[in-house]
Amino acid sequence: MEEKINKFREMIKEKKIIDSMLALLQWDLETQAPKGGYKLISEMIGELSLKSYNLTTSKEFLEMLKELKKNEEKLDDIIKREIELLEEEVEKIKVIPSEEYKMYSELTAKAQGIWEIARENNDFESFAPILEQIFNFNRKFIEYRGIKEDVYSEILNDYEKGMNVEKLDNFFAELKKEIVPLLKEVNKNKRDFQKKVKFEVSEYNQKLFSKEILEYIGFDLERGVLSESAHPFTLTVNKDDVRLTTRYLKDFPFSSVFSTIHEGGHGIYEQGVDEILKDTILSDGASMGIHESQSRFYENIIGRSKEFWFGILEKSKFKYSELSKLTLEEIYKGINEVSPSLIRVEADELTYSLHIMIRYEIEKGILSREYLVKDLPRVWNEKMYEYLGVVPSTDSEGVLQDVHWSCGLIGYFPSYALGNVYSLQILNAMKKDINIEGTLERGELKRIKEWLREKIHRYGKLKTPKEIMVSVTGEELNPEYYIEYLKEKYKNIYN
Amino acid sequence: MEEKINKFREMIKEKKIIDSMLALLQWDLETQAPKGGYKLISEMIGELSLKSYNLTTSKEFLEMLKELKKNEEKLDDIIKREIELLEEEVEKIKVIPSEEYKMYSELTAKAQGIWEIARENNDFESFAPILEQIFNFNRKFIEYRGIKEDVYSEILNDYEKGMNVEKLDNFFAELKKEIVPLLKEVNKNKRDFQKKVKFEVSEYNQKLFSKEILEYIGFDLERGVLSESAHPFTLTVNKDDVRLTTRYLKDFPFSSVFSTIHEGGHGIYEQGVDEILKDTILSDGASMGIHESQSRFYENIIGRSKEFWFGILEKSKFKYSELSKLTLEEIYKGINEVSPSLIRVEADELTYSLHIMIRYEIEKGILSREYLVKDLPRVWNEKMYEYLGVVPSTDSEGVLQDVHWSCGLIGYFPSYALGNVYSLQILNAMKKDINIEGTLERGELKRIKEWLREKIHRYGKLKTPKEIMVSVTGEELNPEYYIEYLKEKYKNIYN
Repeated sequence: MEEKINKFREMIKEKKIIDSMLALLQWDLETQAPKGGYKLISEMIGELSLKSYNLTTSKEFLEMLKELKKNEEKLDDIIKREIELLEEEVEKIKVIPSEEYKMYSELTAKAQGIWEIARENNDFESFAPILEQIFNFNRKFIEYRGIKEDVYSEILNDYEKGMNVEKLDNFFAELKKEIVPLLKEVNKNKRDFQKKVKFEVSEYNQKLFSKEILEYIGFDLERGVLSESAHPFTLTVNKDDVRLTTRYLKDFPFSSVFSTIHEGGHGIYEQGVDEILKDTILSDGASMGIHESQSRFYENIIGRSKEFWFGILEKSKFKYSELSKLTLEEIYKGINEVSPSLIRVEADELTYSLHIMIRYEIEKGILSREYLVKDLPRVWNEKMYEYLGVVPSTDSEGVLQDVHWSCGLIGYFPSYALGNVYSLQILNAMKKDINIEGTLERGELKRIKEWLREKIHRYGKLKTPKEIMVSVTGEELNPEYYIEYLKEKYKNIYN
Repeated sequence: MEEKINKFREMIKEKKIIDSMLALLQWDLETQAPKGGYKLISEMIGELSLKSYNLTTSKEFLEMLKELKKNEEKLDDIIKREIELLEEEVEKIKVIPSEEYKMYSELTAKAQGIWEIARENNDFESFAPILEQIFNFNRKFIEYRGIKEDVYSEILNDYEKGMNVEKLDNFFAELKKEIVPLLKEVNKNKRDFQKKVKFEVSEYNQKLFSKEILEYIGFDLERGVLSESAHPFTLTVNKDDVRLTTRYLKDFPFSSVFSTIHEGGHGIYEQGVDEILKDTILSDGASMGIHESQSRFYENIIGRSKEFWFGILEKSKFKYSELSKLTLEEIYKGINEVSPSLIRVEADELTYSLHIMIRYEIEKGILSREYLVKDLPRVWNEKMYEYLGVVPSTDSEGVLQDVHWSCGLIGYFPSYALGNVYSLQILNAMKKDINIEGTLERGELKRIKEWLREKIHRYGKLKTPKEIMVSVTGEELNPEYYIEYLKEKYKNIYN
């Protein structure tokens, strides 16, 4: 048995090295590679993906899993969970012809460069053909599982176990029911709070502040790095090498501040996985929903609170000199103005979920063949008008704004909404142990990190999202706290 | 036969993908990876190096080379040259036990992180053990070839075919004989020209100007990228993805200007290799000496000329506003001040070769066991005092200043001196076709690039360094032009 387990650990090590290399190539592609390099790097990604595919679908690997499972009672919880997840993964990919698997990996690698250029040039047409291929591959890969109807539910379940279209339809309907009237209420008292926090800061100083904030919230910059990209993201090479990006807008420094805190939340999660899981396949977040609960927790519940900024102004070494001219109240209201805007990543908390709904409905519509990819700019703009009352004047600010689809992340967006909801459930649990306001005011963010680490981060994928939520909060997904939070917060600001 | 050639091309493609991946990992390690990532990335480099080793020393590969060689008359020049170089390479590495080959690759990958930290902390002792291992591996790898005496000559020959200690001793003796009296002469008229070109420029503007200059000299930023690292370098993923780094000193913008031009010279060479060689192993520079001839040509002959700055001031879109306050003469003298300094990469052209000699003598001394690694700080400082009359106050500014040894580049430094000498021979030939002064004044640097491309760059490794020099200049290495150039240039400046 020991021999079998050693064999297993060896193969997992090999798989993890391939995955880390893929992560590094991905990182390079999005942060540094020149256009001339896209082709070769995409090919490399294709080659490595195929290698990873071949490894996990090989007879040897499958036999090994079977053998181990026969003696399940002799295995510890970690390896049991690894086998469970590997079986799920293998089930999904082994039905895909290897050549298609490779093609798709290459395609999504290439697509990011094409998306970036299309966004720069406001040229949806140059992106549409590859986007269509990506959607088609996603549909086809699900169909290979024998599923012909309701493909999207299956995709959603891949990101968040147990999720499907019906549940999300209900979930979003409930959010909409609560948020839309609240938004109307707020709009009656509409005021321009944000202009006070819009000032010019050099990129150099924005970088300094971003790093200061990361350290302040507890992200370890010896085991991670902050860089730049067209669209902020987090990527893990391993738990000692967690990489974040942000982007700097010269005349709106809070854009990078909140991107940085958001990605910092993801990064803290990844860095906090238990050392014992490092060389296992359980060494990252439980699900994308739980992951987003951490990033949105840091970005909004912490980063957009008055107490956090009180602490920063008192405790942090570097801060924008312009902040000293503002009252705490002005900063707080400035970073919490509600205003239907074009760009999701800069949306306030109240309109944010409406942005997600638009993407959710579009993904659903394309996969069910209700919409055609070529019609997306029109559909996007119609939905923007319907939900938010604003229409982008360019596709760059509209349908081309997000990187996700070009990476093949169809079905990812709902994770953000789930993350919002989870984050408030988690806050509610945390409050029983920690005086959050005081902790933030005193700048003791390490305490919050430690709590999250203890309850969530260290487990990595050892627990399911559901197990985590139940053990931490005593219940499963429950939008109640989130809706309550929004109501209270915004009635207070717009009283 | 066609089948055999196809098989060959396939294996070369595989080898090149591994090499490109190694290049990307190297790049990541030096430009972005956090400390926590060094370990895993070094391991990956070790794994990939082993793969590359196994590929080129496999029976299959060796048989294939033999088979092809049997029918040499049916092969074209490109594949013939590839086989020749591959045989040379295989001869050298197949005598090394594979485990040692891998260990050494991992070691040099790790060493760069250790060097960087040691330099930061002025802590030679923490770097010494790994540096000693690197020297030992280099000696051992040569000894595996059956060579026990004069190991350094063999190493020099690896970098520049035909080179050995005797030739370089003579070469450096000649340089010394000419340069030292010239330096004395100049020192009699010592003046502080440089202070005029020392002014503060934000990193942001330095970046802008660096990119502007790269475009100006003809480096293609669509097929290349400029980033930052502790020590500037050039790295090629393939000819469409050529990566340069520089470093920015806040109060001395010309430091990054000349680093950038230097690396730009390397980069232009790599980008200019003929498309037909792209998928062959001939797709980079002929030798490191020829490579340095291009970088030093751009850095010094072009970049430190009066006419180049006249052209820049007239033609380039972005330039430092401080430059408009200076006369052309002030700029010219400011960037050509002769002053014995501590840092090689910032040395003037006259003292530069003395810096190289110090490294040459140290490498020779360690490989022949005359010096011990632990004594290097002392030896370094003694030689600095002897040759340049200055002594660094810290090891960071002394023996720890260069990245080369940590990368395993023992024997590389003489390439810089050879490059200087070659570059003047090349200039002499170029003058017969191009009015250099006028071309620079009119900002027509593309003409110079095209000439170099036509005569040198496009051949990649298809020609030997000697063949290149003979075909371009009609003779082999000849220091005459270089010495003449230095004499004329500096007598003029210090008249």
